[in-house]
Amino acid sequence: MTFTNRRVSIRDLRPLVDGGRFPAKASVGEAVTVGADVFGDSHDLVAAVVGWRPEGGTTWREAPMAPLANDRWAATIEIEEPGRYEYRVVGWIDRTGTWRRDLAARLAAATIEEVDLAIGAGLVREVAAVADATDRRRLSELAATLVDATIDAADRARTALADDVAATLARHDPRRNATTTEPVGLRVDRARARFSSWYELFPRSAAAEPGRHGTFDDVIARMPYVRDMGFDVLYLPPIHPIGVAHRKGADNAVHAGPDEPGSPWAIGGADGGHTAIHPELGTLADLRRLIAAARDHDLEVALDIAFQCSPDHPWVTEHPEWFTRRPDGTIQYAENPPKKYQDIYPLNFETDDPEGLWTALRDVFQYWIDQGVRIFRVDNPHTKAFEFWQWCLDDITRRHPDVITLSEAFTRPKVMKELARVGFTQSYTYFAWRNEKWEIEQYYTELFETDVVDYFRPNSWPQTPDILTPYLQHGGRPAFVQKLVLAATLTANYGIYGPAFELMLHEARPGAEEYRSNEKYEIHHWDLDQPHSLAELIGRVNAIRHAHPALQQDRSFRWHHVDNDQLLAFSKRAGDDVVLTVVNLDVNWRQSGRTWLDLDALGLSDEERFEVHDLLGGVTYEWHGADNFVEIDPHVCPAHVFTIRPRPSGAAT
Amino acid sequence: MTFTNRRVSIRDLRPLVDGGRFPAKASVGEAVTVGADVFGDSHDLVAAVVGWRPEGGTTWREAPMAPLANDRWAATIEIEEPGRYEYRVVGWIDRTGTWRRDLAARLAAATIEEVDLAIGAGLVREVAAVADATDRRRLSELAATLVDATIDAADRARTALADDVAATLARHDPRRNATTTEPVGLRVDRARARFSSWYELFPRSAAAEPGRHGTFDDVIARMPYVRDMGFDVLYLPPIHPIGVAHRKGADNAVHAGPDEPGSPWAIGGADGGHTAIHPELGTLADLRRLIAAARDHDLEVALDIAFQCSPDHPWVTEHPEWFTRRPDGTIQYAENPPKKYQDIYPLNFETDDPEGLWTALRDVFQYWIDQGVRIFRVDNPHTKAFEFWQWCLDDITRRHPDVITLSEAFTRPKVMKELARVGFTQSYTYFAWRNEKWEIEQYYTELFETDVVDYFRPNSWPQTPDILTPYLQHGGRPAFVQKLVLAATLTANYGIYGPAFELMLHEARPGAEEYRSNEKYEIHHWDLDQPHSLAELIGRVNAIRHAHPALQQDRSFRWHHVDNDQLLAFSKRAGDDVVLTVVNLDVNWRQSGRTWLDLDALGLSDEERFEVHDLLGGVTYEWHGADNFVEIDPHVCPAHVFTIRPRPSGAAT
Repeated sequence: MTFTNRRVSIRDLRPLVDGGRFPAKASVGEAVTVGADVFGDSHDLVAAVVGWRPEGGTTWREAPMAPLANDRWAATIEIEEPGRYEYRVVGWIDRTGTWRRDLAARLAAATIEEVDLAIGAGLVREVAAVADATDRRRLSELAATLVDATIDAADRARTALADDVAATLARHDPRRNATTTEPVGLRVDRARARFSSWYELFPRSAAAEPGRHGTFDDVIARMPYVRDMGFDVLYLPPIHPIGVAHRKGADNAVHAGPDEPGSPWAIGGADGGHTAIHPELGTLADLRRLIAAARDHDLEVALDIAFQCSPDHPWVTEHPEWFTRRPDGTIQYAENPPKKYQDIYPLNFETDDPEGLWTALRDVFQYWIDQGVRIFRVDNPHTKAFEFWQWCLDDITRRHPDVITLSEAFTRPKVMKELARVGFTQSYTYFAWRNEKWEIEQYYTELFETDVVDYFRPNSWPQTPDILTPYLQHGGRPAFVQKLVLAATLTANYGIYGPAFELMLHEARPGAEEYRSNEKYEIHHWDLDQPHSLAELIGRVNAIRHAHPALQQDRSFRWHHVDNDQLLAFSKRAGDDVVLTVVNLDVNWRQSGRTWLDLDALGLSDEERFEVHDLLGGVTYEWHGADNFVEIDPHVCPAHVFTIRPRPSGAAT
Repeated sequence: MTFTNRRVSIRDLRPLVDGGRFPAKASVGEAVTVGADVFGDSHDLVAAVVGWRPEGGTTWREAPMAPLANDRWAATIEIEEPGRYEYRVVGWIDRTGTWRRDLAARLAAATIEEVDLAIGAGLVREVAAVADATDRRRLSELAATLVDATIDAADRARTALADDVAATLARHDPRRNATTTEPVGLRVDRARARFSSWYELFPRSAAAEPGRHGTFDDVIARMPYVRDMGFDVLYLPPIHPIGVAHRKGADNAVHAGPDEPGSPWAIGGADGGHTAIHPELGTLADLRRLIAAARDHDLEVALDIAFQCSPDHPWVTEHPEWFTRRPDGTIQYAENPPKKYQDIYPLNFETDDPEGLWTALRDVFQYWIDQGVRIFRVDNPHTKAFEFWQWCLDDITRRHPDVITLSEAFTRPKVMKELARVGFTQSYTYFAWRNEKWEIEQYYTELFETDVVDYFRPNSWPQTPDILTPYLQHGGRPAFVQKLVLAATLTANYGIYGPAFELMLHEARPGAEEYRSNEKYEIHHWDLDQPHSLAELIGRVNAIRHAHPALQQDRSFRWHHVDNDQLLAFSKRAGDDVVLTVVNLDVNWRQSGRTWLDLDALGLSDEERFEVHDLLGGVTYEWHGADNFVEIDPHVCPAHVFTIRPRPSGAAT
C-alpha cells in the first residue's frame, strides 16, 4: 500500500453480483439504480458520481449521485444499446460545498472573518482553472469579489451562497484526491430480455387435420392464432432427428411401438444431431421461412437447446471421448438409480477434451444463430458444468448481444441462481408450485427485494409439458385464470405451454405431476375452437401487458397488505403508469377483505381519493387512502388488474 | 477463461469483509465458523474442506465441511496463535460418495449389475493410489472384492457400503477437478481483543490527598482498588505535555486561569509532543514501573493516542507542512462553524508529505510499544484518513500481533464500521444512548446477527468523560446498575470511566450531556470509600464475567422474548456454559412478564425442567420449557444474570 491523500471510502456497491465476479444485468429501457455508501473522514461534505462506458472503453459517461440517508448515495442510469458495460463510482471531498456550508453557519452567527473569504477565493480559483471559458470568467470574478474588502463581508458571503454558484462549482470540481472504485460489469440486454410473453407448441402437433405429422408450414399457419393471443415469443421444443434406440413410447413407456414418434428431447439419429432438422418437420429452408413468417406476425422464434444425445446421435461414434465410458466398454446412459434412461446419453464435462466439447456445443448455438434465431430455451442446464455455461454464454452474447437464453432448471435454489449468475438471460421459477399466499410472498420477495433481482430474471410458467401441478389438475377454470393473471402480472416474463393451457387440459398420468398422453411422446391433434378456450382472455391479459409499461419490468414490484390470507395484492409502477393486481387464491369461494395499500408505491398521497379501474373486468371503483374494501368471486373472475387514476381535481368528493 | 473440468461452485463465503478487501477478525480461543454455498451440477454429491494457514504459508491445515441445508456448508476452526492468516474453501465432486449413494439405491431395488461394481472398483483404486500404505492395502482389497464374481453381488455392495469405508475413501479423495476459492484474510487477535474489562482514570486525579497533582506512582497505589473490581485494562487519558496557547479552563471555558491544568487532549508543549510525558506525572522510568506494576496486578495499561496538536506542539514548527496553512499564513485550528477550537490544530491528511506524516504517526505507536504498551485507545479516529489507519494498523499489528486498538468514534454508523474494517481491534458503540427495548434489540441484532460481527468488536461504555446521558443523569442507582449489567453481559468488551461511574456522579454541565466540573479540564480528588459506591457490585459483575466463558465472546448471542416492553432478555453460550440475562429497563417500577425462551440457544429441550440461578442475587428458580414468569424490582436489583442448570435427572419433577 502506498501513501495517499485519499479521504473518501466507497463501499457496498449495488448492483454487484458475487462481489463483481459476474456482471449485473440490465436491459434497454430499464432504469438501473446504482447505489453506494460514500463517506469521508471528518465532517467535510462529499460528492460522488457514477460513471459508465462500454467495457474497456476510453471515456466515461457520468451521472451525479445524490445522498439518500445514512451515507447511502444513488443515481439512476439508463443504457440504450445492448452490450457489455462497466460502471464505477467516484467520490471526493466536496471542498467548495463544505466551505459554503461553513460559510452559511458563519454568516448566521455573524462570525465571518476575512480569512474565511480568502480561503473560499482560493478554492473558487482552483475550480475556475479547470472550468470552461464562460464559467472560468464567472468564477474568477467571484474569487475577486470574495477578497474585495470594499464590499461588506456578509454581502460577499451571500454572493458565494447563491444556488447557481453551487451548480457551477459542482460542475467543474477538480475532484482532488478522489477515490475511484474498480469497474463493475453490467450486461445490458435488449428489451425483450426484460419483457416477453412465451407460447410453447409442438410443431408436430400443429397439423390442421388429425393423423398427419405437423410441419413448419403448419406452424406458420398457426401463427395468427398465437399472435391474436398477444404472445411475442413462439417457443418450439427440439426440432432435431429423434433417436430410435431405446425410444420411449406413449406415457413414457419404456418401449415405443413401431409408429411412435419418440420424445423430441432424445436428440440425434441417422439424419443428424443438434444442427439437423427432423425430416418430417421440413427443411432448413422451411425453418427459415418460419422464422421470417414469425417476424411478420410480431413473433420471435425460440428454439430448444438440449445438450444430450440419443444413442443414435452422430457424436456417439464421432466423439466417444465426450461421453462416459463404463468399464465394460459401453457408454453411460442417464440414470437416477434405480431408474434408468437408456434413451439418453449425457455429455461428460469431465472429458479429457473440454475444449472440443465446449466449442462443439457453442457451435450448436452459433449454427442456429446463423439461421436467424436469437432466443433459446435451454433444457436442463443444471446437468452441465457451470463454467461451461459461463464461457459459452459469454462467448455468444459478446458476439450477439441480442441473444436471449432461458434457463430451464427447476432444481435447488442455489443452483438456479448460479445458472442466472453465469449468464442465462431469464430463468424458469418455482411459480407453478407456489399456491399459498405466504409462499408466493416469500418467493417473490426473495426474487424482487434482494440482490437476486440484479442477475435473476424470473419467467413464470403455470405449466409445461413436464409439469402439471395438482393445483391445475383439480382447480378448474378459476385455477387456470388465476395462474395466468399471476404469471402475467407478477413477472414481466411469463409463458404457457399451449394449446394445453388455453384448453385447460388437466388430466394427469396417475402418480405423476405430468399430463396424461403427454405430447412429449405422441402427436396430438388440437381442436382450438372450443367454447371454453381461454384464448380470448389470454389475449386480453397480454394486451394489458403491452399497454402498461408498469408490467414490463420487475424492479418496481411492491406488496400490499390485505387482511385475508386468500387475497394477494401487489403493484408495479413505471413513471405515471401503476398497475395493482388483487387475486383471490381460493378457487372455490368468494373472498373479501380490506386492503392496507402502500400508497407511496402507488404514487398516491395519504388522504387522496382515486379511482381503480379493473382492466380485466372493466369496472371502476372509487377508493380513498390505504384502507379499501375488495371482494372477488373466483367463478366470475379470480383477479382484478387495476390501473390507478387519481381523481380529477374538479370531481365531487 | 480457459477450458476446465471443474463442476463445483463455491459462493457466498463467510466470514468475508467487503468482498475480501479486509481481513475478517477472529481471536485466540474463539471458534470461527467458515460457511459457503457449495454445489455441483447434476445430482452428484459434493464434498468440501476449509483450509487455513499463516498468510503466505506453504501448507494448509484442513477441516472437513459439513452440509447444513440448502447447499450451505460449514466448518468450525480455531486458531491458537495471533497473527495474519488466510483461509480458503476447496470443493469437489464426491465421486465415491455418489457411487455409494447410487449403489445403496440399486441394492434396495435389487438392480445391481456387474458394471456398477466394476465402476466402483475403478474409483476405489483411484483413491488407493494416493492413500497411505495401510489404507492403500485396505482399499486395494476392497477394489479386488468388488469385481470378485465368486461373491454375491449384494454382499459385495454391502462391503462397500460399510461406514468405515466411507471414512477411508473421504480421507484420501484425490479431489479430481476440485474448485478452490481465492484465499480470504483472517486476522487472529489475542484473547483480550475479544474479552476485556476497561477502567479509565485520570492519573492527575489519582493523588491520595487533595490539592496535589497525581503521579504515575499514585496510579500504582490505586491499582489494588482497580484490580479488586475485576478490571483487566487500565486506560489512562493522554499523558503528554499539555499546550498553553488557548488552553481551556474549567467546564470548557475559553480561557484558562493561570493555575488551571488544561485538557490532556491538547497535546504538546515546551516539554515535547506525542512521545513526551507531562513532567508532573513522572518520568519515562516511572511509566515503565507503572506498566510493570500493572502486570503484577493482573492489569494491562492502555494509553490514549490522540493525533492532534496544541499550538505549542513541536511538530507545528518542525513540520508545518503537516497542518493546513490559511491564506493569512496562520495554521488552521479545529472548527465546527461557528464554534472554534483554537487550542487544537488538526493534522492535514491532504498534506503534500503523506509519507512523512503517516510514518511519524506510526512511530508514535511504535515508541509506546517499545515502552511495553500493547493497548491503545484511539481518540477521534474518524477525523483522520481511513487509508492512513489501514496502513498504520496493518504495519503495527504485523510486527506486533498482540497490539489492541480501541476506536473512539461515536459518529455515523457507516464511518464507525469503516474504522473497524480498516483495522481497529475494538470499537466504542452507541450503547450509552440505547435505552428502549426496541432500540437495544435493533442495535445489537445488527452488531451480532449480521456480517458486522466478522469485523466490528463492540465495546460498551455507559459513560465517558465526554458522555453523561440524561438516562444516567436522572435514572439514579437503578440506571447505573442496569447499564453496568447490560454493558458487561451484552458485549464481551466493556468499560467504565471511574471513579465517576462507581460513585454514580451524575450532575451535568447545564445544556450539555457532559459532566459538570469535567475532569478533562481540572484535577479532581476522589473519595472512594463512600457507602453508596458500586465498587463491590462491579467486582461481582466482573467476577461473573471471568467465571463464565459464555460472557467472554459475542458470536453466540441470542435474544429471548419477554411479553413486557420493559423487560429485555438475552443469552450467550460457550459449550456447556450458558448465561441468560434479564434486565428491567424501567428505573422506577417493578416489572413482570412471561418469557418465551429460545430453548435451543440455551441447550435445553422442549419440555425440560431446569434451574436458573441468579449469579448476582444468589436466588435459584425452577423453570420449565419456554414459558416462565419473571419479575424484577429495579430498587432491589434491576437485572438477573442467570446461569442455566439442567435439573439432575434424579430430582423430583
